[in-house]
Amino acid sequence: MTRTTSPSPQPATADATRVAVSTVIFTLGRLPDSDEIGVVLPLVLRTRDPHEGQWALPGGWLDVTESLEATASRTLAETSGLAPSYLEQLYAFGAVDRSPTRVVSIVYWALIRGDEIPDHSVENVRWFDAAALPQLAFDHNEIVEYALWRLRNKVGYSRIAHGLLPGEFTLAELREVYEAILSRRLDPANFRRQVENSGTLIPTDRFRTGSHRPARLYRYNQDVELSDRGPLGART
Amino acid sequence: MTRTTSPSPQPATADATRVAVSTVIFTLGRLPDSDEIGVVLPLVLRTRDPHEGQWALPGGWLDVTESLEATASRTLAETSGLAPSYLEQLYAFGAVDRSPTRVVSIVYWALIRGDEIPDHSVENVRWFDAAALPQLAFDHNEIVEYALWRLRNKVGYSRIAHGLLPGEFTLAELREVYEAILSRRLDPANFRRQVENSGTLIPTDRFRTGSHRPARLYRYNQDVELSDRGPLGART
Repeated sequence: MTRTTSPSPQPATADATRVAVSTVIFTLGRLPDSDEIGVVLPLVLRTRDPHEGQWALPGGWLDVTESLEATASRTLAETSGLAPSYLEQLYAFGAVDRSPTRVVSIVYWALIRGDEIPDHSVENVRWFDAAALPQLAFDHNEIVEYALWRLRNKVGYSRIAHGLLPGEFTLAELREVYEAILSRRLDPANFRRQVENSGTLIPTDRFRTGSHRPARLYRYNQDVELSDRGPLGART
Repeated sequence: MTRTTSPSPQPATADATRVAVSTVIFTLGRLPDSDEIGVVLPLVLRTRDPHEGQWALPGGWLDVTESLEATASRTLAETSGLAPSYLEQLYAFGAVDRSPTRVVSIVYWALIRGDEIPDHSVENVRWFDAAALPQLAFDHNEIVEYALWRLRNKVGYSRIAHGLLPGEFTLAELREVYEAILSRRLDPANFRRQVENSGTLIPTDRFRTGSHRPARLYRYNQDVELSDRGPLGART
């Protein structure tokens, strides 16, 4: 295997562990070769070894003068052009054999709305169906699988779906977000009852009009926290 | 500042980030100078700089041939003599200025029962009230504060209190665990109703007898997962 010059500020030595940061960005979008809406994420084509020619999560090396979250934002922007307003730490992956040299990857994640994605395409970046990925570089299949599991769990007890919706939305729009995340249909009447009983939504006086009968717009109750970072929430 | 010889397998160089692993072990115990039961954790007295003479979480450097979780178990046993059956990853702390050299600490945590703690005391280890700590080394106050916040959150939607109880227990014993974690009294009748409605407990045919009237013993419904690791649960 030929190693090309690395842009890393940290030399790779046999007895050292290097720290990388990768990011899982989920949004809802039309699945490739389908009319269905589902959870999609951006991946970056690797142009050098290891795993040259395979798709990988956006990311890069931790800079010694940079916080973990700043590295996540910087490497995400550099590789994919994306700049979500908020990134949450997901997990640290550190299996001994996950890379030819020892690398611990701190993984961040975020949910973004379609209107937060730049219109222009970025070289070597493509959006994939999160539930039907090809073989990715390193252990990135496992990382996405874990992130997807966390996402599906979180919709059950938090208002995480908010990250995928505009400020005001109809109950049908909210249900479609849940259906896309959970990959299954939900009964509209049951869904309405559960959401109304949860206290997380506030009805507005406005309605969505169009080809269907007008549907009331709701917004999230801002007294409920979107994330669960707790005491870490105030950190930069 | 005099630096003593480090046992680390990784040399500290100015341009490298080193990875450490620390562990927060929570149990319930009598709080120092009090008759109250509360959440306590073991800390280790630092015997060298930086922060010589301050208390710190058990931990040590990641060995390049060892997984994160194996390092957590090894360094916990070496420093505190504790060997819990299960450790869960909590968070990676990586602020630039959290140590004189750049150190990213992957923090694991566990809940253990009193009978899992060795009888003999270990040199330089002392148990502290998690809610009333002195100034600790590095950012370890912040780490414990975050772990305590996660613990208090988790009792609301999972059967995490199970980690602090024997296989069978009375509702009063379960309530006392919740009261110790949440640092407040709970109404016995409300607590009984909520727990019975949750479906997480299974009543047994056995009773706790003693100085009070007999109280039914319950066990947790094993169909409900203790942890929320999901796809990572099967990893070693």
